[in-house]
Amino acid sequence: VEKISIGNYLLTRLAQLGVTSMFGLPGDFNLGFLDLVEDHPQIDWVGNCNELNAAYAADGYARIKEGSIGVLTTTFGVGELSAMNGIAGAFSEMVPVLHVVGVPNTVQQKTRPLLHHTLGDGRYDAYGKAASQFTICQQYLMDTHTAAEKIDHAITECITKARPVYLTLPTNLVYREISSERLKIPLSHDIPFNQPEMEQAVVDLIYDRVQAADGDVVVIVDACVIRHNARKEVDELLKATGFPVYATPMGKTAVDESYFRYGGIYVGSLTHPDIKEKVESAKLILSIGSLGSDFNTGNFSYNIPKTRQIEFHSTYTEVNFARFDNIGMKHMLPKLTERLRDFYHPGHKLSVPAFIKQLPEENTPVISHLWFWPRVGFFFKPKDVIVTETGTANFGILDVPLPSGAVLVNQILWGSIGWSVGSTLGAALAAKDVGMERVILFVGDGSLQLTVQEISPMIRKGLKPIIFVLNNKGYSIERYIHGKDRRYNDIADWKWSSLLDTLNDGGKYPTASYTVNNKEELNKLLDNEAFAAADKLQLVEVMMEALDAPQALERQAELTGKGNAYAAAATA
Amino acid sequence: VEKISIGNYLLTRLAQLGVTSMFGLPGDFNLGFLDLVEDHPQIDWVGNCNELNAAYAADGYARIKEGSIGVLTTTFGVGELSAMNGIAGAFSEMVPVLHVVGVPNTVQQKTRPLLHHTLGDGRYDAYGKAASQFTICQQYLMDTHTAAEKIDHAITECITKARPVYLTLPTNLVYREISSERLKIPLSHDIPFNQPEMEQAVVDLIYDRVQAADGDVVVIVDACVIRHNARKEVDELLKATGFPVYATPMGKTAVDESYFRYGGIYVGSLTHPDIKEKVESAKLILSIGSLGSDFNTGNFSYNIPKTRQIEFHSTYTEVNFARFDNIGMKHMLPKLTERLRDFYHPGHKLSVPAFIKQLPEENTPVISHLWFWPRVGFFFKPKDVIVTETGTANFGILDVPLPSGAVLVNQILWGSIGWSVGSTLGAALAAKDVGMERVILFVGDGSLQLTVQEISPMIRKGLKPIIFVLNNKGYSIERYIHGKDRRYNDIADWKWSSLLDTLNDGGKYPTASYTVNNKEELNKLLDNEAFAAADKLQLVEVMMEALDAPQALERQAELTGKGNAYAAAATA
Ligand SMILES: Cc1ncc(C[n+]2csc(CCOP(=O)(O)OP(=O)(O)O)c2C)c(N)n1
Ligand SMILES: Cc1ncc(C[n+]2csc(CCOP(=O)(O)OP(=O)(O)O)c2C)c(N)n1
Ligand SMILES: [Mg+2]
Ligand SMILES: [Mg+2]
Repeated sequence: VEKISIGNYLLTRLAQLGVTSMFGLPGDFNLGFLDLVEDHPQIDWVGNCNELNAAYAADGYARIKEGSIGVLTTTFGVGELSAMNGIAGAFSEMVPVLHVVGVPNTVQQKTRPLLHHTLGDGRYDAYGKAASQFTICQQYLMDTHTAAEKIDHAITECITKARPVYLTLPTNLVYREISSERLKIPLSHDIPFNQPEMEQAVVDLIYDRVQAADGDVVVIVDACVIRHNARKEVDELLKATGFPVYATPMGKTAVDESYFRYGGIYVGSLTHPDIKEKVESAKLILSIGSLGSDFNTGNFSYNIPKTRQIEFHSTYTEVNFARFDNIGMKHMLPKLTERLRDFYHPGHKLSVPAFIKQLPEENTPVISHLWFWPRVGFFFKPKDVIVTETGTANFGILDVPLPSGAVLVNQILWGSIGWSVGSTLGAALAAKDVGMERVILFVGDGSLQLTVQEISPMIRKGLKPIIFVLNNKGYSIERYIHGKDRRYNDIADWKWSSLLDTLNDGGKYPTASYTVNNKEELNKLLDNEAFAAADKLQLVEVMMEALDAPQALERQAELTGKGNAYAAAATA
Repeated sequence: VEKISIGNYLLTRLAQLGVTSMFGLPGDFNLGFLDLVEDHPQIDWVGNCNELNAAYAADGYARIKEGSIGVLTTTFGVGELSAMNGIAGAFSEMVPVLHVVGVPNTVQQKTRPLLHHTLGDGRYDAYGKAASQFTICQQYLMDTHTAAEKIDHAITECITKARPVYLTLPTNLVYREISSERLKIPLSHDIPFNQPEMEQAVVDLIYDRVQAADGDVVVIVDACVIRHNARKEVDELLKATGFPVYATPMGKTAVDESYFRYGGIYVGSLTHPDIKEKVESAKLILSIGSLGSDFNTGNFSYNIPKTRQIEFHSTYTEVNFARFDNIGMKHMLPKLTERLRDFYHPGHKLSVPAFIKQLPEENTPVISHLWFWPRVGFFFKPKDVIVTETGTANFGILDVPLPSGAVLVNQILWGSIGWSVGSTLGAALAAKDVGMERVILFVGDGSLQLTVQEISPMIRKGLKPIIFVLNNKGYSIERYIHGKDRRYNDIADWKWSSLLDTLNDGGKYPTASYTVNNKEELNKLLDNEAFAAADKLQLVEVMMEALDAPQALERQAELTGKGNAYAAAATA
């Protein structure tokens, strides 16, 4: 049999999955492996500025490159722990990320000398133990006999469960040779089929419920449709039945927003009154891929009794309190679609509120959230990748209808600020592979300060995102939650317009920066064709007021503040 | 009894310890607590740019403010995990840091709703479990009855063991009132006395060994002298005996480098031949506070048999293979000093190599490491705080004699790049409290990119460090270890001279940036009195060659490269 080094075995597996970029930083425990990466014909090494940003980038890459995974490589201790919050975010948000860690050689792992990057007490297992809290699978390569199997297992877990995994690669194993036999069989993405009789029974049950509802049915799509690659299956169900469809904040763009039966965003008590009434009055709600977190549900304010809801998840289905384990939506939805074709006409009876772009009239030059978001709505094009950061941006984008084929990426459950910057780097690299076009980031001035350096690799890799920095002098989302005038919500007032120039690679790449102080300036910029063509990296500083926010945020903030109960009243 | 809120109870304890700065970032689970911090008369909130940097800053603060602690406050999940590598570094390097985490209210901790910043699966204990790998004590406040005791316990562990601790503060407990009674008794720094008979026996034993050595004794001081506040005790021993003294890299400045019996740095096989011979030929070596990590020992190359060595540690003593547990150096050293006064004359017999400043002649304008480090040696003043980053800087500083009263701060064991930047922020704030004067940072261009934003809070707090950025176009230390010409060791070529201007707070503070291309330019700058006065924040970009390094690094790198054994030869 042909031989291959363990390092290249891993890279071949990644290449088979379509991985084209690897994120991370060098460190003396991974340098040997990076030689192989640098020499690999398909995989490009993206040197990040720090490991947290690298994890965010791998996450953004995986989100756009559906069916593939994001990969980062870090070094023992210092590197891997720096990435921990990014990995935990991928766990929480169900993003398939492989974290490869270069670790001391296998002899050192046993004798545990007092090496640099250790805790000083010989606990070589501490980092893996910490990682086990935030990854679904940890594999420690220790010899040539089990290496291939461990690598395959880690990657398979990653792709089928859409969660991060952890893999250690000791320095002395990178070049050790093993059989390449297993590589002939590509790793399977396939998730298990549902047990046929049980699946049939569930489909029948749902059919009966739909019939009883007399076609008065609406669909709500949520995050897991995206994470578990069920967009196509959902689309076919919708087209076959004509049922009205709404999305949650995390499910936005799971369904094409230009689809004529799409009605906008449902987010519990924060929902637009029109939409709220339509959704909550339906006799039956098919809730697909739901993720019921506070910010995704208007603080748990769904006004839909369980009895009127059917839940479709990646690994189970729930109908009227009955849980059907191992009946996953991916395989069941196509069968359901066939059964429900009868409802094509009644399905179309229900009216759907028009989810269309509208620019409010305001007679002030100030760029308000109320005006800003609809305005950028007119700037978007099909095939745009839109990334929004936690803060006012995540709320502002919700009411903007996005063009057909545009994709929105956000991190509403985990909500780690700074994520969007690394994520944009990864998303922009992935976008090139999947035929998406512009990448547009909306990030608050506060959030951008956490991870600002990651703009540098964007420039260096020739990427051309448009970065809108919402300059509202600090942490506005927090001002709405608590401490409106507190200094801890202020930040330093950076000179955003000179940032790209500072972070450029010796000025080698063209970039452009703009500051827009009022509506007129923003209009002019957005209408400028050269700007809209996004043929270089561009940063737009948007001047906004510290105490302005999208309406949905104002209401959410109130609810969050109450939950935190800083008032002395609450009892422990 | 008088009542006090739990939040203020904690702050009072910190104030009693002399804490004047708290690091961190706001988040909705800590905002209520931050109100108390902002309103506190003695403690100043330092809003950092991100949590990893905040942890580094708390670490730097604690290192300079001996006897006190560094404190950072972060938010649940996203904030605390971002800080993890900084906390692990404090663990490894034995720095007392308190990590306060604002967490959901105590009801939510029990019902575990799907809040933002959770993993989505209800595991509210995951972050604490991860933290337990890197902190010596974790305390979870859950009610009013045990809060004070838990706070006191956490802080006492922190100060007496010089390691990080973890404390959660639920939103609803911050303002709950408890008795302030306990606050009347300040927390004790005191470490336990040694058992007197055993201590006496050890002192006698050591006395005999010294006598047998006929006063042919040298002392090596290391990291734990600094970490466990034994500088004074060591100083008295040295003055009483006249024994020659050397320091390890991590012990540098534990002893005043202008002391006439101080001979420089001992680092195993990487030691200067003069020093090496003197140390290794002594009949007896008193090794105080040693930390035997690879980079601190020339890759474990001490050429001193155990039989000729006595080891003094914070919690035990070792003489001729015999370990005396719970005989700590802090209390034993003064007793030993009294016993060894007899050796004052023989102790002075041994000659000590002169550790003096010398500038080599080089007939090239290029700024080489060989010339640079001695040159800045002439720039240093008493009471300077000097911070060096992992990379060429950590090695370059070793051979430079530092003035009396100057302090060197580095992170040789943990070696997380970017640390020095956050650490400088913390060190500069602490320096003001303890009467140190200039703060001078040496950081590589690669390392600075990881944590660059933390220069912004330095400016905003009116701090005036001098930051030397060694611009050698990438990760030179790594080029010496592996991958000399590899692209993964290249970085983007930032415009360092415009950095301060970009990160300033609306240009409110004066700063200055310089680029020095050759020896003449650097000489001119260093000789400029206005520059040396350090009356504003200054950044100096020092142009160096990618393939130049201090000699000690060249040799260390070779040894590290071998340990990693990337060659196919090694067996698993
Ligand atoms: C890593 C991390 N640290 C802290 C927080 C808490 N936090 C949430 S939003 C926010 C402020 C965001 O400010 P900005 O990006 O300026 O947004 P905007 O002003 O538009 O709301 C902070 C500090 C967090 N979510 N994640
Ligand atoms: C957090 C972290 N990531 C990666 C590394 C591996 N590493 C050690 S030194 C180094 C390069 C430092 O480069 P630079 O700061 O430019 O120093 P110099 O060129 O002067 O050696 C790297 C990447 C590390 N030690 N810590
Ligand atoms: Mg803001
Ligand atoms: Mg460098």
